[in-house]
This record gives sequence, structure tokens and C-alpha cells, in this order.
Amino acid sequence: MTGLQITEAVVTPIAFPDPPLLNSSGVHEPWALRTIVELRTGDGLAGLGETYGDLPHLELVRRAAAELVGLDVFDLNGLTSRIATVVRGADAPDAHGLTGGSSPAKTLARVVSPFEVACLDLQGRASGRPVCDLLGGKVRDAVPYGAYLFYKWERHPGAEPDEWGAALDPDGVVEQAKRMIDEYGFGSIKLKGGVFPPADEVEAIRALRHAFPDHPLRLDPNTAWTVETSVLVAEETGGLLEYLEDPTPGNPGMAQVAARAPMPLATNMCVVSFADLPEAVSLGSVGVVLSDHHYWGGLRASQRLAAVCETFGIGLSMHSNSHLGISLAAMTHLAAATPTLAYACDTHTPWQSGVDVVQPGVLRFEAGAVPVPDGPGLGVELDRDALARMHEDYLQCGIRQRDDTGYMRRLTPGYRPTLPRW
Amino acid sequence: MTGLQITEAVVTPIAFPDPPLLNSSGVHEPWALRTIVELRTGDGLAGLGETYGDLPHLELVRRAAAELVGLDVFDLNGLTSRIATVVRGADAPDAHGLTGGSSPAKTLARVVSPFEVACLDLQGRASGRPVCDLLGGKVRDAVPYGAYLFYKWERHPGAEPDEWGAALDPDGVVEQAKRMIDEYGFGSIKLKGGVFPPADEVEAIRALRHAFPDHPLRLDPNTAWTVETSVLVAEETGGLLEYLEDPTPGNPGMAQVAARAPMPLATNMCVVSFADLPEAVSLGSVGVVLSDHHYWGGLRASQRLAAVCETFGIGLSMHSNSHLGISLAAMTHLAAATPTLAYACDTHTPWQSGVDVVQPGVLRFEAGAVPVPDGPGLGVELDRDALARMHEDYLQCGIRQRDDTGYMRRLTPGYRPTLPRW
Repeated sequence: MTGLQITEAVVTPIAFPDPPLLNSSGVHEPWALRTIVELRTGDGLAGLGETYGDLPHLELVRRAAAELVGLDVFDLNGLTSRIATVVRGADAPDAHGLTGGSSPAKTLARVVSPFEVACLDLQGRASGRPVCDLLGGKVRDAVPYGAYLFYKWERHPGAEPDEWGAALDPDGVVEQAKRMIDEYGFGSIKLKGGVFPPADEVEAIRALRHAFPDHPLRLDPNTAWTVETSVLVAEETGGLLEYLEDPTPGNPGMAQVAARAPMPLATNMCVVSFADLPEAVSLGSVGVVLSDHHYWGGLRASQRLAAVCETFGIGLSMHSNSHLGISLAAMTHLAAATPTLAYACDTHTPWQSGVDVVQPGVLRFEAGAVPVPDGPGLGVELDRDALARMHEDYLQCGIRQRDDTGYMRRLTPGYRPTLPRW
Repeated sequence: MTGLQITEAVVTPIAFPDPPLLNSSGVHEPWALRTIVELRTGDGLAGLGETYGDLPHLELVRRAAAELVGLDVFDLNGLTSRIATVVRGADAPDAHGLTGGSSPAKTLARVVSPFEVACLDLQGRASGRPVCDLLGGKVRDAVPYGAYLFYKWERHPGAEPDEWGAALDPDGVVEQAKRMIDEYGFGSIKLKGGVFPPADEVEAIRALRHAFPDHPLRLDPNTAWTVETSVLVAEETGGLLEYLEDPTPGNPGMAQVAARAPMPLATNMCVVSFADLPEAVSLGSVGVVLSDHHYWGGLRASQRLAAVCETFGIGLSMHSNSHLGISLAAMTHLAAATPTLAYACDTHTPWQSGVDVVQPGVLRFEAGAVPVPDGPGLGVELDRDALARMHEDYLQCGIRQRDDTGYMRRLTPGYRPTLPRW
């Protein structure tokens, strides 16, 4: 296996249909964007990675790809340093802000991530080992995910109703949960909040508890609330939630809520890069960090995050944005090899309507959990027809950067995304 | 490579001659003990690890070895959990205390370490990759080590003078440094202190600075001083030391010194397991942690330590006890793949008089640095004749647990190891 050098790095932006899911920034557009990365080596092997599709990020990913020919796929330190020379301190924030603040370090980590995953995929393919083995070996044979509920419209304006229908009140949310749990077997539930006044969302949580007496519940308003509102909601939902996620912006505000909340606070917004951890530790602002290999810098960097969290007694869960099968496979290998991951992971898989860039058959949900693929590397193969089709959709869809707020404003003039809102 | 299961785990205690090196606990006995671990797989591969030889530890290592047949060498999580079931919360402190306090977590980490290194050696051999590649790829082709000076007697009582002669004053220390640097090319210097009154040791540091104007200098009294003495020495050696190592016991005391010392404080005694880090971070007690894969739990655990240190702005160096070539190879691979390691590593290699359990030719010092072995795994091979000879020496030498204090007491009745001493 000596000398497994990258001979070609292919970057393909794609789009896939996305339902009108509501959040504190607005509403999902009709198409979600992703970028697929393929690293090839001279001996015919290829490794896969998946990342965001927003244009400023895509441009950095393309510049990074151009620097990787000749790199050994085991040289992950070299990968980071090569990419750092082309990213050069750039800062490419998300337009939606749903993964917290941006920084040059986080931007670099986001660009490195799909290539790191693709290198690990190649390491595994070359050595006949699943990626979880390269990460220390699986501690669970299947990775539990949670039912990720969203308030949603029945349809995108001008389109047919989608398969899920509307969910705009507690009954709609419970109906969505029942259907998703029937289909996938999820053993825990997260509701994306920050959409309606807090009292309505608390009502939805109560309805979920009534319908699912034993499912752990979470609520994530994406920093839609002030400290005072957050404390009130935390008190009202005491005993109902396993954790409350990002009720309010920033570590200082979170710390004020944490001091009075009966449940742990979780975050994927106030701790989003290693630089955020000292403040969070010092203030005691979070009890659970939701890791996300897409912006923490890949699978090994996520393991480093897990080590920091374990050292400081912070729990670990896993965040998800809209994603496809390459990311689901990567998340599953990582989660399988992370002993301290104590919560069901987030996933958007049910929202992708069966569309994927990977060939079917490997990834599946059994009782809410994804069995760890046992083939070499990530264990998934690219569906080239699907990739071509989804790239065509990317070219046609007209969306170049996710903009939940802009889409909402086009439909609801005067919509103000200012947070905290309540 | 699928299915690389351990078929046999061989544990061999050995001994090798050690000069009468002085420290704050006493003096090195005539024989240093180590334990060599060999993991074999069905296909004829063998992986190597090296650890302490003290009997209570050796017994735990033997119990661990008996549990490993059938384990896949990539399953490092499984390695830890299997060993945890036999260590069962035991706590086997060092008799000498030179690596700080003991705990069940540290005891487990010490037992896991040689097996983890041997598993990585096997992973590398099976995949044709040096261990540094498995750790993320080398960021340096050779790893700088420092001249590790000791006050020492001319000879063990009743024995011939050893090749190094006495070093009991500044002149002796400088002479030792000159010889060691002539022979190995080291670019930095550490003096093991805590032996003579602090003023004498400061004098030795001044003499070293005079003889070696450009070599970074360190002084390590192994917690021999009170807070007040430590502050005085720190003030007197301001501008002379790149760091001052473990002047006084415990994180609270170290923090008091750190607040007034002009140089960073380093430690391998008050931060010796992950559980020590929150207090150290909170108090600001240390500027540099000396990692040591032998008691942090192996190479991957040391990388996790590096991640925590980087996150909290703590520098990273590397500690050494008396060791042989398997450990030197492991330290070199780890250091090569650790970008944040900013200091020359400690090593006892010059004190082992050319005795080793590995075949000669791979490990060498060039300008004070060890070129990273480029063969598969650790890149070193066991010298079976030497292993047999050194095991015979173990059986004959009569020492079963390192006891620098007991040896000193036999020679200097009334010697009191109480620390801090000054």
C-alpha cells in the first residue's frame, strides 16, 4: 500500500428536492445543495466526501481540490496544511447562521472535512477496513438516530403537496412524529423550534410526550429566545426534555440559562470550533456539544472534540444539516467508534424522499438505527447516474447559496429574521 | 487484511544496567526494569510494545495479555474495554512517584499503553505503513530530542566507574553536557534537579548557559521545592530557562508559582491523566504539559491529550523514563505526527550504554534528532538474543520494583525523601 497518492480530485455540486421545513431563520428552499468530492488514486481506487453546496464554500473546495494531486492519502496533517495555503484565512460564513458564528478556523475546517473523509475512505478501501476500524473500532453495531421533526408547510408555493403534509400545530407535529417513527423506528425525538411563540412549541412538546410517553424529547429553537424566555421555557419543560438545544445566542447567555435550567443545554451554535471551548468550559454554558464533522474538520477532528468534551465532563451528541448518504455513512462510522456519544444522532435522511447519490442497499434504518456498513472504507458506492442527474438539477435550480431567510421574505414580505425573537 | 486477530500475547520482563543517576527521590538502582510486549497474529506478524517493569504493573500487564486472544488489532476501543475488565479499578502506584500521583484511570492507561502501541505496530505492518502515517502523517522527518543531564555518582557502590563519571557540581554537569552533545548533537539541554540545594542547581544552569550560549535550557527538580523557593529560583533563572519543570507539588502550588514566574512552568507530575486537566486549566497552573504515552494510554490517547492542550493554549513537550528502542521508536512516530509538539523531547537513550532489545541500524541520532523509521509499523525489530539475555538479567538482578529511595537509604542511612525538601 506504500505510496497511495491522489491523482485526481473531482468536485461536483448537486441539488436535491427539499420540503418547506421551517426554522428560526426562515424556511428551506425547494432545493438543498451539496458538494460531492471524489479523490482518485493511481490504482483505480476512489474515496468519497460530502459537504455544503453554497457557492463561497464550493469555490474554496474547488481551490483546495486543485492542490491535492500527489498527496498521500494517509497524510492528513499534510492535507490540512496544503488546504490552509489556499484558503489563506478566508472566512465564508453561512447565509443562514444555523451553525453559529463563522471564523477563518471554522472555514478551513469546513473545507478540509470532505477531503479528510475521502482520504479515510481511501485508507479503508486500500487496507480492506471499514472507516470505523481506522477510528478505533466500533463500540456499537448500529448507530441510533432520532426522529427530527420540523414545523412545515403542506407544500412549496406553486408546487404539489409533498408526501409529509403540513405540520403547523401540536397535532400536525404528533402526526409527523407517528409517521416518521412508524417508518424508521426512531427511539427519540427532536423538534426544530424557534418558529412559533414559545408557548405553542411547549404545547407541541407536551403533545409529543402524551403520544410517546417513553421517547426522549429535545427542542431546538436555534437561539430564537432571550435569556428570560429560555429560562421560562426550561422551567416549563423540566422533566420533559433530555436536553434543550441552543435556546439563546452566545456562551454568556447560554450560561445564564444553564444556571437555572433543570435539563442540560446542548449546542451546535455557541460551540462550533475549538476556539469556542475555553469560554464554554469557563462559563459552564453547555452540558452537551453536538458535534458535526462537516464543520469541525472531519472525523479525526471530531474525535479530538470528543476527547475535549470527555475531559471536561461535557456530553456529546451529533448535529445534522440536510445531507445525503455519503455523510450518513461518515456520521455512522464516526458515531460507531465514539464511546462517549451518549445520545441518538440527528439526521435529515427522512426528508430527502429516498433521493441519494449513493447506490441503495447499504444504508438502512433498523429500529431507528443505521447498521454500520461493513465494507472497506465508508462502505458506500457512488451512483453515477444519480450524481449526473443531481448535478443537472444543481445547474437548473438556480439556487447557489442556501438562503432560508430570503426565500421566506419572498413569500412573506416583511419577515424579519432578527434573533432572539421572543 | 480483514480479520487481523491476536493469537498470542507474550509478556517478557527484562532488566538493563542503569547508572547511579540522582533525583529528588533518591538514586537509580544498578538495573532498570522494563516489560516487552509482543502481540502475534495468525499470519505470522508480530507487534511490539514496551512499558514499565515494576512487579505490580507487570502483573496487571500479564493479566491483560491473557484477555487479548481473538481481539482484532484495529479494535483499540475493544482493547481498552477488555483490559478494563481485568484491571477492574486497580491502582498500582509507582514506588518513586516521579510521574506524579496515581489513580485507577492512570493505572488502566499504563496497562493499555504497550498493547495499543503493539496493535498500531501490527496495523502498520499489515498495511505496509509506518505508525506515523496511521497517526496522521509526519510533519517532521526527524524528531529532536534534548540532552538529559543528571547529577550522578562516579559509580554504583562496589562497582567499577561507569563511562560517564561523576557529575556532582556545575563543572561535572557541564562536562557531561559537552560529552553528550558531542556524541549526539543535541540542540537543547535539560538538567534533572532536586538533588542539591537550589542555589547550587541555579549555579549549574548558569554554567551551562556560559558553556552553551544558544541551547535552550530546562531544569526539573521533581517537586523538591516549596512555592516560595520555586518563585525565587524562577526569578533567578528568568531569561535562562525555556521552561521550569515541576518545581513544586500539585496544581494549586504550581499555579501560585506560575503567576509569578517569568517562564512557563512545565509538568509531568501535576497533570498526569485527563482528570487533572480541568483543574490545571482552571488554575492556569501549567504552560507546558510533558506527554508520555506510557502512562497516558498509548499513542492515540497522547494525540487526544495534544488536542486538549492545543484547545486550551497549553504547550506540549514529551517526557521520558529509562527506556529502550521500542519506546524510542514509538515516541518518535508520535512526535513526528504531532504538529503542536514545539519542544525537543526528553530521552534516556544516552544512559542505556548501547544496550537495547531492538536490532541496531534503524534508530540513530543525527544532530540530536532521530530520523523517523520508514519501515512498516514502528520500523524496529526485536533482537531475540538480547531479549533472552535481558530477561536472564531480570531474573538475576533481584530488583522487582524501581525504588530509588530504598536504594539511596541503603547507601545513606537516614535519607529522607520528603518533598518539598527546600
